[in-house]
Amino acid sequence: MPKFPMASPLVSAMGGNPYSALAHRLATFDGRTFPLHVGDTWMEPAVGTRQEDIRVADHPGVHKYVSPQGYRPLLEAIAARVASRTGVKTTWENVLVTAGGTGGLGAVAGAMLSPGDEVLIAAPHWPLIAGIVRIFHGKPVRVPLDQCADEGQVIQAFEARRTERTVAAYLNTPNNPTGVVYPREWIQAVVNWSEQHGLWLWSDEVYEDYVYEGVHTYVRPLAPERTISAFSFSKAYGMAGNRVGYIVAPRDVIRHVLKVSTHTFYSAPTSSQVAALRALGPAGDAWVAEAFDKYRTLGRMAADTLGVSRPQGSTFLFLDVASRLDARGVPGMLEDLVSRGLLIAPGGSFGDYPTHVRVCFTCAPPEVVEEGVHVLADYLSR
Amino acid sequence: MPKFPMASPLVSAMGGNPYSALAHRLATFDGRTFPLHVGDTWMEPAVGTRQEDIRVADHPGVHKYVSPQGYRPLLEAIAARVASRTGVKTTWENVLVTAGGTGGLGAVAGAMLSPGDEVLIAAPHWPLIAGIVRIFHGKPVRVPLDQCADEGQVIQAFEARRTERTVAAYLNTPNNPTGVVYPREWIQAVVNWSEQHGLWLWSDEVYEDYVYEGVHTYVRPLAPERTISAFSFSKAYGMAGNRVGYIVAPRDVIRHVLKVSTHTFYSAPTSSQVAALRALGPAGDAWVAEAFDKYRTLGRMAADTLGVSRPQGSTFLFLDVASRLDARGVPGMLEDLVSRGLLIAPGGSFGDYPTHVRVCFTCAPPEVVEEGVHVLADYLSR
Repeated sequence: MPKFPMASPLVSAMGGNPYSALAHRLATFDGRTFPLHVGDTWMEPAVGTRQEDIRVADHPGVHKYVSPQGYRPLLEAIAARVASRTGVKTTWENVLVTAGGTGGLGAVAGAMLSPGDEVLIAAPHWPLIAGIVRIFHGKPVRVPLDQCADEGQVIQAFEARRTERTVAAYLNTPNNPTGVVYPREWIQAVVNWSEQHGLWLWSDEVYEDYVYEGVHTYVRPLAPERTISAFSFSKAYGMAGNRVGYIVAPRDVIRHVLKVSTHTFYSAPTSSQVAALRALGPAGDAWVAEAFDKYRTLGRMAADTLGVSRPQGSTFLFLDVASRLDARGVPGMLEDLVSRGLLIAPGGSFGDYPTHVRVCFTCAPPEVVEEGVHVLADYLSR
Repeated sequence: MPKFPMASPLVSAMGGNPYSALAHRLATFDGRTFPLHVGDTWMEPAVGTRQEDIRVADHPGVHKYVSPQGYRPLLEAIAARVASRTGVKTTWENVLVTAGGTGGLGAVAGAMLSPGDEVLIAAPHWPLIAGIVRIFHGKPVRVPLDQCADEGQVIQAFEARRTERTVAAYLNTPNNPTGVVYPREWIQAVVNWSEQHGLWLWSDEVYEDYVYEGVHTYVRPLAPERTISAFSFSKAYGMAGNRVGYIVAPRDVIRHVLKVSTHTFYSAPTSSQVAALRALGPAGDAWVAEAFDKYRTLGRMAADTLGVSRPQGSTFLFLDVASRLDARGVPGMLEDLVSRGLLIAPGGSFGDYPTHVRVCFTCAPPEVVEEGVHVLADYLSR
């Protein structure tokens, strides 16, 4: 009974932010710092798409409430873009604008899960998805795909963890944290398997615009009736602080997810939605083209410096540093690195990866990323 | 089993937006319209606190992620204000900046409720609180206070509905929808009763700045160890679209609520938090003083025109129109009013009030409110 002074046992048992102590130490570090732990960008958004560009004179009432589903011109622009990119008929009724990808997938979990329902999560995975499933009383079940050689092994990994309580499978491609772009064959196999077993597909495609090798496979065209896709202006256009993403799904699903989003954040911010609409125009396209080139160059530099495979997509590298760890493991390594001004993310945030670390190669200016990556490379080559 | 194609039974059973059909009819209405159904303001935020005032040149990185707990200078400014207004020692660790009051109370529900836990909700109540409890698998239990003559009857009403599963009581003063400011004696009595029974207090005080008669009683000073207070920049400073509010609570509670907010909306928007910090300065104070005078004048005009008691606080009037309804009830009345260009909110959104309606007297420019109120008065005096 979570009466005073107790919180719910479920939430009490959840861990807090794994970086906070280290981030605090970094903030007080006396010297140059290399904060490469967060998935963000150093680039300011395109001129014309910034908050300062959203003027009351042009948009009277832009600080007022907007419809919880989203600003109608933005809903329609998103629908048109999604239809053109995926070939699937899409109207504004298939779209819900959300408080980032997090708000979107959170509302999806709230709408789809009953207590005890299980979600199969392809791992390594975006850190927040496990907690999202948990706070809505679902059970996250990790499905490690990093050792799979082909789609047969992928389906084996999923099938081995499916139970009567499984309701959905979560995929994230291009992947955070690995930088891998899942092959079309893998995705098609997961789609076929989900159809056999009556499962929903939660498809996190927030890095759709950042594929450096290979091709991004949109999941929704393969099974539009069962796919719930998440996208984000945060990653695409450098506006993570604006809190705007969107969900694309069958109309009835949107209707249910909207009930949860209305009760968890009400709506995405109004001015941020106007900024998002502007980002869907030429200024945003030019920004993405510039970011794409810079991100790819940085990703290749970082991979080459660290002696690992170049990223196929996203803004991350995921390194197994087992051979370089002492008895203190990754926590000890992170402490050593913070004392050199570098903060990166521990593998445990992404699944059962106690000897991995994640580096974001876009969250600081290129020269800072470059130097930070060299700090890491030097440390690893001791 | 909410496998494909089903959503969770809980969310499937929830209703959607009660206004959407009527709002759509109003949008296509051929003539002047009086949309008085939403709790918002016609006033633009103070110059200096608008999104256009938050410039990259002054705030590099203002479109990037901010700490999920909030922008540290804002956390500290809120803590200082709360300490000075309430006399309770408050530090930034007692504060969580949220996606409006909705995001705050949603995260509180997520952190505090296990499935089946009951929350006693003083009614008439803010529409979203019942759904917030429900989506986190709690049970909202309404406690009608509108017929209570004194604190003895208030406690009787609460006690009659308390069970072994009750974990919290929710109070909203100044009240949406009634415009009532609860007397200090009522609040003290509820605090004493909550202490006897080991309950949390969820105190929604988003209209703290808009009290026209009587005095606002802060709940936290009466029981700081068990009170979770919700506030909002939306209502105070005319920035509902910015999605910034905050929760004030014991440090351990904030730590747990933060886990849920991180997984439902991640953080409040960065630029909106910078704007909120500015609103806490002189520009915001001047705005509130001006809004206060205008709101009070409008509230009195509306009440006098409709022949009901003047509002003590908030931005609403709640009218029992039973004697004016035909067999179609409030839905029929709302349809009639929409055909005259007026949209107001049905009493059923606020509890068991099938013959009431709510009017917001600040959500349109004064001349629109005045004319809309006259449309309603004419209809009621047929």
